[in-house]
Amino acid sequence: MSDHPKAAMLVIGDEILSGRTRDSNMYFLANALTEHGLPLSEVRVVSDDHAAIVAAVNALRVAHDQVFTSGGIGPTHDDITADAIASAFGVAITHRADAMALLQAHYERAQLPFNEARQRMARIPDGALLIDNPISTAPGFSLGNVHVMAGVPKIFEAMVASVLPRLVGGPALLSQTLRLMRGEGEIAADFGALAAEYPALSMGSYPFTLNGAYGTNLVIRGTDEAMLTQAMARLTRLFAE
Amino acid sequence: MSDHPKAAMLVIGDEILSGRTRDSNMYFLANALTEHGLPLSEVRVVSDDHAAIVAAVNALRVAHDQVFTSGGIGPTHDDITADAIASAFGVAITHRADAMALLQAHYERAQLPFNEARQRMARIPDGALLIDNPISTAPGFSLGNVHVMAGVPKIFEAMVASVLPRLVGGPALLSQTLRLMRGEGEIAADFGALAAEYPALSMGSYPFTLNGAYGTNLVIRGTDEAMLTQAMARLTRLFAE
Repeated sequence: MSDHPKAAMLVIGDEILSGRTRDSNMYFLANALTEHGLPLSEVRVVSDDHAAIVAAVNALRVAHDQVFTSGGIGPTHDDITADAIASAFGVAITHRADAMALLQAHYERAQLPFNEARQRMARIPDGALLIDNPISTAPGFSLGNVHVMAGVPKIFEAMVASVLPRLVGGPALLSQTLRLMRGEGEIAADFGALAAEYPALSMGSYPFTLNGAYGTNLVIRGTDEAMLTQAMARLTRLFAE
Repeated sequence: MSDHPKAAMLVIGDEILSGRTRDSNMYFLANALTEHGLPLSEVRVVSDDHAAIVAAVNALRVAHDQVFTSGGIGPTHDDITADAIASAFGVAITHRADAMALLQAHYERAQLPFNEARQRMARIPDGALLIDNPISTAPGFSLGNVHVMAGVPKIFEAMVASVLPRLVGGPALLSQTLRLMRGEGEIAADFGALAAEYPALSMGSYPFTLNGAYGTNLVIRGTDEAMLTQAMARLTRLFAE
């Protein structure tokens, strides 16, 4: 599946690493990117630490076509993502006029003071393109191939919906699953032999237990639907008939 | 919180990156390690790819005191973690006698053939210590500071319970939360000023919405319970009284 562009995700936040919050953005993005034909090939989670964010962004943006980040763009002192991205790219960061205008109008409508903390959310690295936030206004941004989005799941999901249409994906990654009530160890040899015959497909095996009995989901993934269907037909003949 | 040893996790599996499976092991491990005083400072997720696993293991094991991996140690062709760990450490990997004996006895009891695929699960890198698997027998292993465990959540959790008592942790990382029905932008300045007074604590702010209104959870984390309680009392006086 080397015809696909490669994507990576960087999740930023102490609350994920401490176990306080269970991340859901990775699961959401993984599905959205698989459908868009821009599958994730790596994810990293780092803490709210400037050096850790800079190092991870720089490692991921050279190794992947697109990088998506989640978290750390709010108004509080622990929101340091925008500054870290500016450092990673070696560009300046300022309160940008268009982002200031968006936020000022938002807080006027809400009859809330547009104070220094809220103005912080208009700090955008030079050269970035804003990402629309239809939920709470404060924008994300794209700088080069790095797309910086909020950590709150509803806002993250809305931002992904704004960004993805801009990005060229490959053909959608399709998958088919055969569910068997047999253990992995029983089907491994034949399954491995079939996988070796189809280097353009990816085949994986995922065990489970049901009422104390072993079962296995055999999953075939690929972009060529006809080939996928043919391989699944052979798999079904091997095990399920 | 520099008195803590540092831990990292490596999640291995195409099914996480494609969005087929929602990972739960990261969330489980994050909580277990926070309690053990060995908090996670980084997580990476990579695909079932030899070079990607080797590179990630080698990057993580030099930068952290302990590394925990999840996934890829079953009997099928896509289970390549044990071989990748052996490559990362530059050691040989063989069918180890004690692991073979455990598995042989297990399959005899189950009256199932101990075939080549199942024997694969006895392949252990030279110099590793086995990790007990009370659920399905096939062991994990520790090699140096890298602890290699299964991806199936019940087995992963049982293996974590076997491994953690062996590892020296620091004092447990404690946390207290103040829940406010006020937006982040309103409390950011005072919260940031308080955080600056307590460099030994970590303070984070996590917004939410409830029935259309904005709220914020303010979380203080640290190992010194008296200091944590004092800081929380000051936070409460600032905002909640």
